[in-house]
Amino acid sequence: MRKSFFLGIDGGGTKCRARLRDADGALLGEGSGGPSNIRLDPDLVWNSILTACREALSQAGLSDSDLGAVHAGMGAAGAGQASAVERLLSRPHPFASFAIDTDAHTAWLGAFNGGDGAILILGTGSCGYGGVGGQCRYVGGWGFEISDEGSGAAMGRELLRRCVWAHDGRIPSTPLSEALLAEFSHDLEKLIDWVGAARPSDYARYAPLVLDYANRRDPLGIALVEDAAAGATRIAMRLLELGAPNLCLFGGLAEPLLPWMPPPIQQTIVPPAADALDGAILLGRSAASRGRA
Amino acid sequence: MRKSFFLGIDGGGTKCRARLRDADGALLGEGSGGPSNIRLDPDLVWNSILTACREALSQAGLSDSDLGAVHAGMGAAGAGQASAVERLLSRPHPFASFAIDTDAHTAWLGAFNGGDGAILILGTGSCGYGGVGGQCRYVGGWGFEISDEGSGAAMGRELLRRCVWAHDGRIPSTPLSEALLAEFSHDLEKLIDWVGAARPSDYARYAPLVLDYANRRDPLGIALVEDAAAGATRIAMRLLELGAPNLCLFGGLAEPLLPWMPPPIQQTIVPPAADALDGAILLGRSAASRGRA
Repeated sequence: MRKSFFLGIDGGGTKCRARLRDADGALLGEGSGGPSNIRLDPDLVWNSILTACREALSQAGLSDSDLGAVHAGMGAAGAGQASAVERLLSRPHPFASFAIDTDAHTAWLGAFNGGDGAILILGTGSCGYGGVGGQCRYVGGWGFEISDEGSGAAMGRELLRRCVWAHDGRIPSTPLSEALLAEFSHDLEKLIDWVGAARPSDYARYAPLVLDYANRRDPLGIALVEDAAAGATRIAMRLLELGAPNLCLFGGLAEPLLPWMPPPIQQTIVPPAADALDGAILLGRSAASRGRA
Repeated sequence: MRKSFFLGIDGGGTKCRARLRDADGALLGEGSGGPSNIRLDPDLVWNSILTACREALSQAGLSDSDLGAVHAGMGAAGAGQASAVERLLSRPHPFASFAIDTDAHTAWLGAFNGGDGAILILGTGSCGYGGVGGQCRYVGGWGFEISDEGSGAAMGRELLRRCVWAHDGRIPSTPLSEALLAEFSHDLEKLIDWVGAARPSDYARYAPLVLDYANRRDPLGIALVEDAAAGATRIAMRLLELGAPNLCLFGGLAEPLLPWMPPPIQQTIVPPAADALDGAILLGRSAASRGRA
């Protein structure tokens, strides 16, 4: 019988990563490619996937002729959108099998090896995901405008709101509000111009400033970090209530926010068993063993 | 000496209104025209202004040949933006004099006849404005994204946020959250699609629903109206602290929110002495008497 290989793919907006293991789980190679958020053009996404894949194969001494022995699993940004998945799958793939799910799902698969538990991503956006008995669901993660509590973008936007209050005299100024307003020459017209063009990632760039001032006991900084931690805690509480015995945290705000969360939540945090690439390998293996292609 | 006339103009995004009085304050006529937010094309805005003006003049038995005896004052949406005012004034006007300021300023002029006091506008957006000794300033009013607390748009957006929480199970469902989610077939994808295209006025259309459920003691409705009233109160408190002895409320949410505000704030509320059109007339008269054109 021909030897099988297992490829995990992590598809994001800026790059695509791939990891190849054999049936025993031994690491054979890794590679990377271009943007692969699957809402993007399917030809571009497949090109990114195959670039990352070929690099991983070549490290293993394999070539395109071996693609038919590769079972691939992919966790991708945008895979929650059925139409984007359909668009991607409208192109033929060269693998023995190809399974796709959201990047949250493969992060969860990796973190708990498919077992009970939940992940909480606290980055530019925020999202909770996980469950018990293989039944998973989202808590939050519906975007900047009306969701994403505890995210860097939400923290940055709330900083700007409170600085308008401080500028108006509705709340006392603090070193943090002075530092932020000084960036805009204390001119709210300039601040509002900036807001008009700002994306969530622009707001999120203020999160380190907030954390820095909070850690120096700035009252506004502390209030904003407490708010963000409270938002993250509300998501965590619901994930635990749904039956997840433990949580894994991901994202750039996970480590800084954790000490601000209630101790009973902190005590549920465990390190991930493996990363999202190994989660994607698990996704591909499960799909292959169920005979899907 | 030739007789003088005084024209007040109220320029908004959907229409332009005008009112003509003589030097003794007697009402001579009123008229209306098209959109005249001065961020719009200046030819369009002048056309709207002159349409409203001619209608008012014709009611007074006057014609275009009398425009040179008319001192005009205009309160306009967009007049806080210096470049928009410059663009408007790049076209010659036919009046004896023409003065322009923001719609908040003419509303305040009308409400307090130029005396001490402050106005608080609670509509789709929100804005505080006013002061003492002719020195006025804004409190709030910097837009939907990071300001406009207590506005209908902010209330509607917060409703959607809390309904996501209810859908996730982060907070209990209430009749209000059920009614809102039912509009989107309890499908958050649909709700998020709606959010992606929503403008502040779209969010504000949910304010009456929130008020209705709050008045029927829906816990979520009560929480949202309390939040909005607290935001409006924070603006009101600052306006009073700046020295305004009294407040006038404007906008569609003013009347419904007032009973939710603290009694010491409620006791400062007075009815406006006159409306924004008479405020615009006052603006035009003051400018004319200072010899401005």
